Amino acid sequence: MTSTGTSVSMPATATLLVSCRDRTGLVAALSEFVFKNGGNILDADQHAEVETGLFFMRLRWDLGAFKLSRAEIDAAMRALAVRFDLAWELTYSDVRSRVAVFASKAPHCLYDLLLAHQLGELRGDLALVISNHELLQPVAGHFGVRFEHVPVDAHDKAAAEATQERLLAEAGVDLVVLARYMQILSPGFVARWPSRIINIHHSFLPAFVGAKPYHQAKARGVKVIGATAHYVTSELDQGPIIEQDVCRVSHRDDVDELLRKGGELERRVLTHAVRMHLERRVLVSGNRTMVFG
Amino acid sequence: MTSTGTSVSMPATATLLVSCRDRTGLVAALSEFVFKNGGNILDADQHAEVETGLFFMRLRWDLGAFKLSRAEIDAAMRALAVRFDLAWELTYSDVRSRVAVFASKAPHCLYDLLLAHQLGELRGDLALVISNHELLQPVAGHFGVRFEHVPVDAHDKAAAEATQERLLAEAGVDLVVLARYMQILSPGFVARWPSRIINIHHSFLPAFVGAKPYHQAKARGVKVIGATAHYVTSELDQGPIIEQDVCRVSHRDDVDELLRKGGELERRVLTHAVRMHLERRVLVSGNRTMVFG
Amino acid sequence: MTSTGTSVSMPATATLLVSCRDRTGLVAALSEFVFKNGGNILDADQHAEVETGLFFMRLRWDLGAFKLSRAEIDAAMRALAVRFDLAWELTYSDVRSRVAVFASKAPHCLYDLLLAHQLGELRGDLALVISNHELLQPVAGHFGVRFEHVPVDAHDKAAAEATQERLLAEAGVDLVVLARYMQILSPGFVARWPSRIINIHHSFLPAFVGAKPYHQAKARGVKVIGATAHYVTSELDQGPIIEQDVCRVSHRDDVDELLRKGGELERRVLTHAVRMHLERRVLVSGNRTMVFG
Amino acid sequence: MTSTGTSVSMPATATLLVSCRDRTGLVAALSEFVFKNGGNILDADQHAEVETGLFFMRLRWDLGAFKLSRAEIDAAMRALAVRFDLAWELTYSDVRSRVAVFASKAPHCLYDLLLAHQLGELRGDLALVISNHELLQPVAGHFGVRFEHVPVDAHDKAAAEATQERLLAEAGVDLVVLARYMQILSPGFVARWPSRIINIHHSFLPAFVGAKPYHQAKARGVKVIGATAHYVTSELDQGPIIEQDVCRVSHRDDVDELLRKGGELERRVLTHAVRMHLERRVLVSGNRTMVFG
Repeated sequence: MTSTGTSVSMPATATLLVSCRDRTGLVAALSEFVFKNGGNILDADQHAEVETGLFFMRLRWDLGAFKLSRAEIDAAMRALAVRFDLAWELTYSDVRSRVAVFASKAPHCLYDLLLAHQLGELRGDLALVISNHELLQPVAGHFGVRFEHVPVDAHDKAAAEATQERLLAEAGVDLVVLARYMQILSPGFVARWPSRIINIHHSFLPAFVGAKPYHQAKARGVKVIGATAHYVTSELDQGPIIEQDVCRVSHRDDVDELLRKGGELERRVLTHAVRMHLERRVLVSGNRTMVFG
Repeated sequence: MTSTGTSVSMPATATLLVSCRDRTGLVAALSEFVFKNGGNILDADQHAEVETGLFFMRLRWDLGAFKLSRAEIDAAMRALAVRFDLAWELTYSDVRSRVAVFASKAPHCLYDLLLAHQLGELRGDLALVISNHELLQPVAGHFGVRFEHVPVDAHDKAAAEATQERLLAEAGVDLVVLARYMQILSPGFVARWPSRIINIHHSFLPAFVGAKPYHQAKARGVKVIGATAHYVTSELDQGPIIEQDVCRVSHRDDVDELLRKGGELERRVLTHAVRMHLERRVLVSGNRTMVFG
Repeated sequence: MTSTGTSVSMPATATLLVSCRDRTGLVAALSEFVFKNGGNILDADQHAEVETGLFFMRLRWDLGAFKLSRAEIDAAMRALAVRFDLAWELTYSDVRSRVAVFASKAPHCLYDLLLAHQLGELRGDLALVISNHELLQPVAGHFGVRFEHVPVDAHDKAAAEATQERLLAEAGVDLVVLARYMQILSPGFVARWPSRIINIHHSFLPAFVGAKPYHQAKARGVKVIGATAHYVTSELDQGPIIEQDVCRVSHRDDVDELLRKGGELERRVLTHAVRMHLERRVLVSGNRTMVFG
Repeated sequence: MTSTGTSVSMPATATLLVSCRDRTGLVAALSEFVFKNGGNILDADQHAEVETGLFFMRLRWDLGAFKLSRAEIDAAMRALAVRFDLAWELTYSDVRSRVAVFASKAPHCLYDLLLAHQLGELRGDLALVISNHELLQPVAGHFGVRFEHVPVDAHDKAAAEATQERLLAEAGVDLVVLARYMQILSPGFVARWPSRIINIHHSFLPAFVGAKPYHQAKARGVKVIGATAHYVTSELDQGPIIEQDVCRVSHRDDVDELLRKGGELERRVLTHAVRMHLERRVLVSGNRTMVFG
């Protein structure tokens, strides 16, 4: 059963993510740029943040009758970026992202991503699964996705990362998803993929430090457990949050059931975060995100 | 304890709600209008609907340094409305809505609205409580809100409605909230307040027709109950939905507990809907709404 | 990748579901029965319903040191059932249910069940997938579950059902799960599987009658969509509800996105309902269920 | 408008909360005790915890035809407690708890409790509001609840606590609810009210240490905020959790809106926790609770 992804027969669209400090005239300039070149705005979402004085914008327009080539669009955007001092990112719906999933032994998050992909729910292609174990090879195989086993030697992580980087480069990957990948990536690796690695981890109210957090949650009698998907930064599990969700638990749930509920949350939250990223709905600003829903 | 509402010391803002069929150039024209007259866009939210070809927009800009008077803004908007065939509504943050609450005997929704108002969470003034019973007079009195007892004679509803209309006119009311008001308003009354009357009612999966819906829900063993806030139209409980929410129930909940949970939902959903309306986040199109969150 | 299910190395437990009218002395008699024969109560959940005068109970005890054989337990229960006029069902944790999944072309619910099964989250064995199409054969195959293609001829449904019944009998199935199976089972089939067929369908507030409910929901601007899992009875989609859940939607969700969110709800709600059934947490009384969470 | 609370005309019931280590025969003994003395079990909820070997039980039976006096019930329970080494608590539905609410200046939690009480949703009487400020006196007055202003001198907290303790004793209070009371109670005060003081505080994923947590949450871009109600122990905000809930937030919510949503959560979660406590659904074991829903 091979994966097909979504149809690409619809006319292409351009999605622009922008953040800047002084927005005076920006919206007018961008709207005018789209309009005068024959584009139609499909979605626009703008937010001025009182606390920081920052301005954020997501703009999506159709390219069916757009008069400019992509090179011309790019040049025009560079000029606007200088004029308004913008941080910006421009993507096209017909240039699909290529995604690699890193996994270890736990299959649930990997399955959810592969299934979402197969159902055409992700605007990107799952190019590659990389794992430090061989266990999940049949899972990738079932969905027709290439699987690479890259063992990680605790004494030479650099070798494994070099192999991973080579595979990612060969496959043209631009997003790495850690689907319960139980190895810590080096700061160097992380630095080469800024806002391009998504991780998932459990979250609790209150937070539990140390090992066996679900056992701690059980002993503490929490009524809610959660999961958080975030971009990976050099600070462990402290990167910009993309999505969070929780579910209720009670004393009737033993640790195994807490783990099961946690796993269900993890896969749902991770897949949602990946979908938001691939739809270019996530704008990173400092150590946080705006998600344009 | 008198109510104070929110501070109005912040610079005024204008909020524009727009819907139209052909949007080509509209965003550019509106952005240019705001920009060239010295306004700054604070929030903009645009949505093109594939299914209908309609375009919806909410635009909010600050008026601190705006060069046009309100009469001039109004004239400019009229011109744009003709040019783009717009349905539109323009409001100013310093012109506060005046709200009347209609209630009968159940106090929970009325309390929630009065409390939200007192906490400064509603961008409008509760001008008046009208009830067909005297029971809730002390509730309004406690919050310093005028209370009018307008009995409804089943054989002469028109007399009661005439009194209500007079009271609303005298108090300059522009939004009526039915907070568990147990009388059905006449088609004429409803027609005079289009998208200006908000009602709350219970909702179930599946729906239960007829009397005592909570008893039916109990007998049917539903696992979820809900509440819906909507604008009142001539078709009973079928107007445009503003907000819905649900809560879980189980066989342990007897009918009284279902009613309690339903009441908690009702007050939360109704107050939320009123808040959204007063913040001009609700755009009505046909028999539905967009709520710009 | 073959499925393994949960480990069965833990000592067996017995689970008793009981409903009756007059409970006087029942709990004492059942507790005494477990105690004097060397059992330990692990969970007990009792509920007396004021509205109906009915009494419901779920009792689970360990059999590690229990002095009675299963034949003796059965005989004792029969005597108690006569004495207290009980409706009852007794199951053992080491006698695993055998489940058949009926599917058509949509894979999402089938995947979710197969994955939950493989992760050891279902207390039963997926013995068989039956489909009126061949499309999902590789899905069952990947999880090592037998797949039978049983085409349904619109002019001779009885033939298909006869084949299905034979397959179910051969495989020793005691629960049928309709995972978006797009054929209506005959009243005869349904009658032979009372409280033994679980179905999933979408639910809306308000309900939408007729075709294309998601299109209707879009046109109506609902803010919440839901899904309901229930036992199948002769009355279409009106059987006892096992589980319901909802998710929020907005005007930003087009019909495709509503369908995607609905599908996510469907698989979650259906798998949850199946898990509850297999853990013997669901007690049917009339046209509703108690779910002992 | 005076508060009336719930009707007490229904026959009284007894509610027993029990925890113990070895439960062998306990359920049989308790069921037999209720049965042979003419009682009917209305609800029973038992849970054996694998992780700790502990057993927990909530048992509620009607006293309409019960043959024993309360002194006799008490004596019988003492004997059972010795025999089975029980931690236990027995309460009667017609002996209503008396509740004191401590508040400062924020009215939202106090209003919610007073309203729930007036609607008859709390199985206890609000005897007294104590505040270190005079601001909320009219709120208590409106609901006909006594208000005592007890200023707290930062240099002599002991004097204030002595006054508070005297007022609580005079009013026969057995539960103290801290409804955003902005003073820290001394360890001595807390020790005299074990599992008898309920507090509410905000909760975040991740947790934020230090001042202005909502500002930190805004800067960190969290997608969910929460609130936790717990019993107060000598360790600040670390006592047994009774209830938690969360709500979604986004970049569109400024700090004021986060505070508003947080306040709405706080009042809902606190009132729910108080209701659970007053219905004797909360069993404390070590530093956690079981809540029998």
